[in-house]
Amino acid sequence: MPGRNHLFIPGPTNIPESVRMAMNVPMQDMRAPDFGEFILPLFEDLKKVFKTKDGQVFMFPSSGTGAWEAAVSNTLSPGDKVIVSSFGHFSHLWCDLLERHGLEVVNFDVEWGEGVPLDDYARVLAEDKDHKIKGVFACQNETASGVTSDIAGVRKVLDDCDHPALLYVDGISSIGCIDFRMDEWGVDLAVGGSQKGFMLPTGLGFVGVSQKALAARAQAKLPRTFFDFDDMIKTNATGYFPYTPATTLFHGLKESLRLLLDEGLENVFARHNRIAESVRRAVAAWELDLVARGPEWYSDTVSAIYVPDGFDATEVIGGAYKNYNLSLGTGLARLQGKAFRIGHLGDMNELMIVSAIAGAEMAMRDIGMNIDPGVGVGAATEYLRSSRAANLASDKAA
Amino acid sequence: MPGRNHLFIPGPTNIPESVRMAMNVPMQDMRAPDFGEFILPLFEDLKKVFKTKDGQVFMFPSSGTGAWEAAVSNTLSPGDKVIVSSFGHFSHLWCDLLERHGLEVVNFDVEWGEGVPLDDYARVLAEDKDHKIKGVFACQNETASGVTSDIAGVRKVLDDCDHPALLYVDGISSIGCIDFRMDEWGVDLAVGGSQKGFMLPTGLGFVGVSQKALAARAQAKLPRTFFDFDDMIKTNATGYFPYTPATTLFHGLKESLRLLLDEGLENVFARHNRIAESVRRAVAAWELDLVARGPEWYSDTVSAIYVPDGFDATEVIGGAYKNYNLSLGTGLARLQGKAFRIGHLGDMNELMIVSAIAGAEMAMRDIGMNIDPGVGVGAATEYLRSSRAANLASDKAA
Amino acid sequence: MPGRNHLFIPGPTNIPESVRMAMNVPMQDMRAPDFGEFILPLFEDLKKVFKTKDGQVFMFPSSGTGAWEAAVSNTLSPGDKVIVSSFGHFSHLWCDLLERHGLEVVNFDVEWGEGVPLDDYARVLAEDKDHKIKGVFACQNETASGVTSDIAGVRKVLDDCDHPALLYVDGISSIGCIDFRMDEWGVDLAVGGSQKGFMLPTGLGFVGVSQKALAARAQAKLPRTFFDFDDMIKTNATGYFPYTPATTLFHGLKESLRLLLDEGLENVFARHNRIAESVRRAVAAWELDLVARGPEWYSDTVSAIYVPDGFDATEVIGGAYKNYNLSLGTGLARLQGKAFRIGHLGDMNELMIVSAIAGAEMAMRDIGMNIDPGVGVGAATEYLRSSRAANLASDKAA
Amino acid sequence: MPGRNHLFIPGPTNIPESVRMAMNVPMQDMRAPDFGEFILPLFEDLKKVFKTKDGQVFMFPSSGTGAWEAAVSNTLSPGDKVIVSSFGHFSHLWCDLLERHGLEVVNFDVEWGEGVPLDDYARVLAEDKDHKIKGVFACQNETASGVTSDIAGVRKVLDDCDHPALLYVDGISSIGCIDFRMDEWGVDLAVGGSQKGFMLPTGLGFVGVSQKALAARAQAKLPRTFFDFDDMIKTNATGYFPYTPATTLFHGLKESLRLLLDEGLENVFARHNRIAESVRRAVAAWELDLVARGPEWYSDTVSAIYVPDGFDATEVIGGAYKNYNLSLGTGLARLQGKAFRIGHLGDMNELMIVSAIAGAEMAMRDIGMNIDPGVGVGAATEYLRSSRAANLASDKAA
Repeated sequence: MPGRNHLFIPGPTNIPESVRMAMNVPMQDMRAPDFGEFILPLFEDLKKVFKTKDGQVFMFPSSGTGAWEAAVSNTLSPGDKVIVSSFGHFSHLWCDLLERHGLEVVNFDVEWGEGVPLDDYARVLAEDKDHKIKGVFACQNETASGVTSDIAGVRKVLDDCDHPALLYVDGISSIGCIDFRMDEWGVDLAVGGSQKGFMLPTGLGFVGVSQKALAARAQAKLPRTFFDFDDMIKTNATGYFPYTPATTLFHGLKESLRLLLDEGLENVFARHNRIAESVRRAVAAWELDLVARGPEWYSDTVSAIYVPDGFDATEVIGGAYKNYNLSLGTGLARLQGKAFRIGHLGDMNELMIVSAIAGAEMAMRDIGMNIDPGVGVGAATEYLRSSRAANLASDKAA
Repeated sequence: MPGRNHLFIPGPTNIPESVRMAMNVPMQDMRAPDFGEFILPLFEDLKKVFKTKDGQVFMFPSSGTGAWEAAVSNTLSPGDKVIVSSFGHFSHLWCDLLERHGLEVVNFDVEWGEGVPLDDYARVLAEDKDHKIKGVFACQNETASGVTSDIAGVRKVLDDCDHPALLYVDGISSIGCIDFRMDEWGVDLAVGGSQKGFMLPTGLGFVGVSQKALAARAQAKLPRTFFDFDDMIKTNATGYFPYTPATTLFHGLKESLRLLLDEGLENVFARHNRIAESVRRAVAAWELDLVARGPEWYSDTVSAIYVPDGFDATEVIGGAYKNYNLSLGTGLARLQGKAFRIGHLGDMNELMIVSAIAGAEMAMRDIGMNIDPGVGVGAATEYLRSSRAANLASDKAA
Repeated sequence: MPGRNHLFIPGPTNIPESVRMAMNVPMQDMRAPDFGEFILPLFEDLKKVFKTKDGQVFMFPSSGTGAWEAAVSNTLSPGDKVIVSSFGHFSHLWCDLLERHGLEVVNFDVEWGEGVPLDDYARVLAEDKDHKIKGVFACQNETASGVTSDIAGVRKVLDDCDHPALLYVDGISSIGCIDFRMDEWGVDLAVGGSQKGFMLPTGLGFVGVSQKALAARAQAKLPRTFFDFDDMIKTNATGYFPYTPATTLFHGLKESLRLLLDEGLENVFARHNRIAESVRRAVAAWELDLVARGPEWYSDTVSAIYVPDGFDATEVIGGAYKNYNLSLGTGLARLQGKAFRIGHLGDMNELMIVSAIAGAEMAMRDIGMNIDPGVGVGAATEYLRSSRAANLASDKAA
Repeated sequence: MPGRNHLFIPGPTNIPESVRMAMNVPMQDMRAPDFGEFILPLFEDLKKVFKTKDGQVFMFPSSGTGAWEAAVSNTLSPGDKVIVSSFGHFSHLWCDLLERHGLEVVNFDVEWGEGVPLDDYARVLAEDKDHKIKGVFACQNETASGVTSDIAGVRKVLDDCDHPALLYVDGISSIGCIDFRMDEWGVDLAVGGSQKGFMLPTGLGFVGVSQKALAARAQAKLPRTFFDFDDMIKTNATGYFPYTPATTLFHGLKESLRLLLDEGLENVFARHNRIAESVRRAVAAWELDLVARGPEWYSDTVSAIYVPDGFDATEVIGGAYKNYNLSLGTGLARLQGKAFRIGHLGDMNELMIVSAIAGAEMAMRDIGMNIDPGVGVGAATEYLRSSRAANLASDKAA
């Protein structure tokens, strides 16, 4: 099929040219005397992205699922009580992982479209006078439903009842895209992955770990070797690894961290918000509904969009792929057939998102949905134009 | 600037991923025993793209300008009379080259927006009873104005008066995009370049040469060494070159030829027509004028679009680049400030052209042009949708 | 430093140009309708390399250490008794993993330089009348000492006493380089990694699993999510994965599998043997000793070479890297300072290994070791020449 | 064939990884507003490599042959008298170009193995009292015979008789490898190519032009368009080009210039000399003769080596390629069958040249030449070791 694929799934995301260039390298000796000099600055820059000074960030040669497992197995023991909430495919899977690892899981099933139920967490934690609950789990951005939760709120809930449980946050589809403040929010275990905001191929799982979480290792009885923090701590100190790391990805990471920090994290977040809002304007112009039930839940990295009754979202996605080489996110689990997703995270600019909006519009019209041609693109581009103008105006004022 | 650059100049064009991949190679010995086996099929496939069985295609490590010079210097002598027509920046430059090389040039200045003046050619050739005119020059596709000329018509003019002059065609921005029939149209010297329909970086100039043109070498007195056909003929026979060739580009060419022939040339032409027509639908929806003065001149590889009086096309182009990372073609020479161009040739699909249309629309609105948001994209996408549907219908019927 | 790095560590290995080219791709949707068609043949070809028809091969986005863990956690329960032998850094680490995962480990410490102690295994297994031993672990190729063990022999030991324990083989630095016969040898869990014989970057851990081992999952109580076979089985069936896979590496794997199968596995093994023997000839000419204590233990993928008393192998390695851009393998654990290693696996030919031998020779002379200049290269090249001639002769005879 | 190709032809040369990486880019608009900022520093750095402050360096999208033609056609007129000397395939070809372009050529045929005949030049120039001779041509490094000529000597000859002729130097296989001083030596036209010391693919022809040579354009009547300096001067001033340039190569050039200047030109020259000398030590150990007839002619970029009577150098080259994947330079023209060449220019280090020496040795032994195994490598490595030690000692002293 001529022309490029238009990739708008919520990860893996589009890789910037300079990152792609940086990964076009031969293999190298990960025990060379100068290897550590290459690695150590990566850890420092990762900490900036996680917004932690006190914590440590680990890099595992795995996906985000592996990083979830690392966070859990290094800090908990079988039978430990944890609370978690499920409101989409990925928050559900994390919950599932906890159960498989023998934890006593208190799960709150939330309607898809909303996020972490702060009231429920508050109630259960307040009741837990003897601090049986060892871990509180929260998914900052549910990739399946396009819902962002209030992590600062979870911290406040813990603080309000002086609860010592560790706070675990799934930031896979948020860190590097949406504001995440590990130290300020008291996040103990923060999980990220290379193929989202870090704009890399899959293959690096990140775990930001607070000093409190590091101390918890001593009691943690879950078995771990591949994901063991101890082995990492010993070798990472000088820039090395306990087993062969994914050096190619490190070269890409060096460049993607440079890109993120050069653009400035706050600018990166503002850009994601602006691109996301342009999608929401298009959705409104199409007179369709987001899965996210209100602005407080809107995700700036992915939008899940309901198709009207009588239509099959799978046909929108399949048609977009087959006819327009556009990769949209599928509706996962209970959203299958009911919603499609536009991933708008990572290396993205105005005309990229416009092509996704135009392609989704074409695919929806192709199956007979009643949408005026160009109406979504028109709403999106007007927003993009005016928001840029506003930025410029505020730039001048500053 | 985050996100990709959107490249819609009429060359260099976007490089397909597989072509880019194919060029990521180390250097190699161009005198190796097996080098010829790699090269010979390239010549065969190039002939298919030029639609010649009788002729020979040369590859010079140069740009298209060099290929122009090769065509001229191998077949003409100082003082030879030639006819040519100028109706844009590039047809003008070819005319200029002829004058610099000491030829007696009869040039027809044509209003930009039209192409080769067949009547003028017919008149002058008919009058040339003693065949003083040795060469007839025609630009198939004027990249500056987005005008395509009728090469079969030029051949007919020559045939009608039994004129033996050689027919030189600039096919740089047409071959591999728009139908070109070297043998059927009796083209003697057909000039192409790697960075247009061949979807490669700049660096290969192609010249398709008829047997008649090859025979003309004996009398041709213009000096030539780098561009000499003789040296090429001797070495090309076994797949080698008289001096170091651009081997990296050959690896890309192998893949781009595969892509063109696998898609099928007629399908490639139809795709270019469909993409181009979607741009024209957007232009109509914007209520703007093409530089090309009528459908008979419309180019399927590039559209030059006038902005209304009182507006500066340079600002559209500059704003598109600065604000939306969109590279549009500038208005060259007398079109500067009056028109901008959208290149729609090479590796292109529906959502790529849609992003160019949307970006041009945004840039035009940014300078205050009165265009309804989304109207161009709406017209373009509707055309793209309906024309695809038609294709599908005819596919089924077949 | 000008010129290329000469990489002769026993993994990551040199990446063939065509594999590197194949991985130079943009990201793609791992849930696209045609993704499965891309993946399914990879599983089939992997089975050919593992020499299994009955088993299944899994690909985890991890290193080989992760694949070890996958093999263990899917088939064993805490407290299960296993036997293992340690005779180098990596066999020791696998043993360590078993202990960390709560297994009852019977470990045989073997002098470094020898491999799996068949007699000890035979004795213990014969004594284990009530089949308390659930797993028998063997490292086919100890990368730290350059020792290859007899896996067929381990199978025979098990068969001789009709013991039903599962047979686990670490084939990370052997599969794709040295003969490995999963079905014929009755290997139940065969572990491989992308960065050795598969000539890829680190990032894929392979586990070949027999039907018997698959059946063992039902009883296995070790926790697992990231490394769970069940999730893989369900999704792999149609060419998909339970979480985001490393698609870039799959493109490289497709090409590296093609290379291995086109060359022919037996030819790949013979090439590794021939390259390895040339190193051993050099070592003999240098009058040095291999760590491997005899031909029955010689590894065809890596040679660990003792330096004489009074010299520090670390200086050889450091000097080679600093002065000649040559990456040799360091002496790990108890071999530190006593031995250096030459990795000679993967994409390797005659003149590549010659540069390693010459560089090692230079680095040894630089620290005052008494070696005649060129003697190692002379012995190696003569062997390479004569063994090639022999091949040619046998080719003719055939 | 497994493993890498070992490339030791005298161009194209091995491309450094960082240069290769830099060229892995998409196409871009060569008329973009910020394109000039990218280009202008390239011209400045090129001038440093040519060692000119007063002159200007042009970059043509061509090979070195094209750059020869540019130098000639911009500064001379048909019938102009020039002197030149031929002592190898490439100096002969330049002479041939001069004749084809209608110049009155006085050529000195020199025995291959020696270079520019200063005495002959001195005699003829002294006799040319009325300055009929407009150009003096000298090949600094004859790639076919491995002979370097004394360009400072040619300048002295001109100065001694106050002759105003322009001095043309072919520096294709010397600039960036061997000392070249455009201003100090009063070189008026200095020709270079991308695929030699600049470590790039073929595709850029460089011409360094003195102010005197620029002034000569006014009288020069040879036709030129593609190679016209005027068009370049006008557009280069702001960093643009008269026709589509080879942007991909510019990205590589930026990096290769950085590498050359970071290493330091004098260090680059010393490195080439050291690598070359190691080859000469091997040749001496083999008891063979260089084509170059004495140290004053020895080239530091390429060594042409005679095989003894009764042996065919073509078989050495063919065997090296077929059996060891080693690309040696063939014997060109009258050296065919009599000599083979080892190119040792560009991105080269100790163990790279060692593999070439070892491979040549193997190929020579394969055809029955009487050479002790390892003797060439031994001599070369001892020289490389001792010369490095010397460098270190002098480094300490400094």
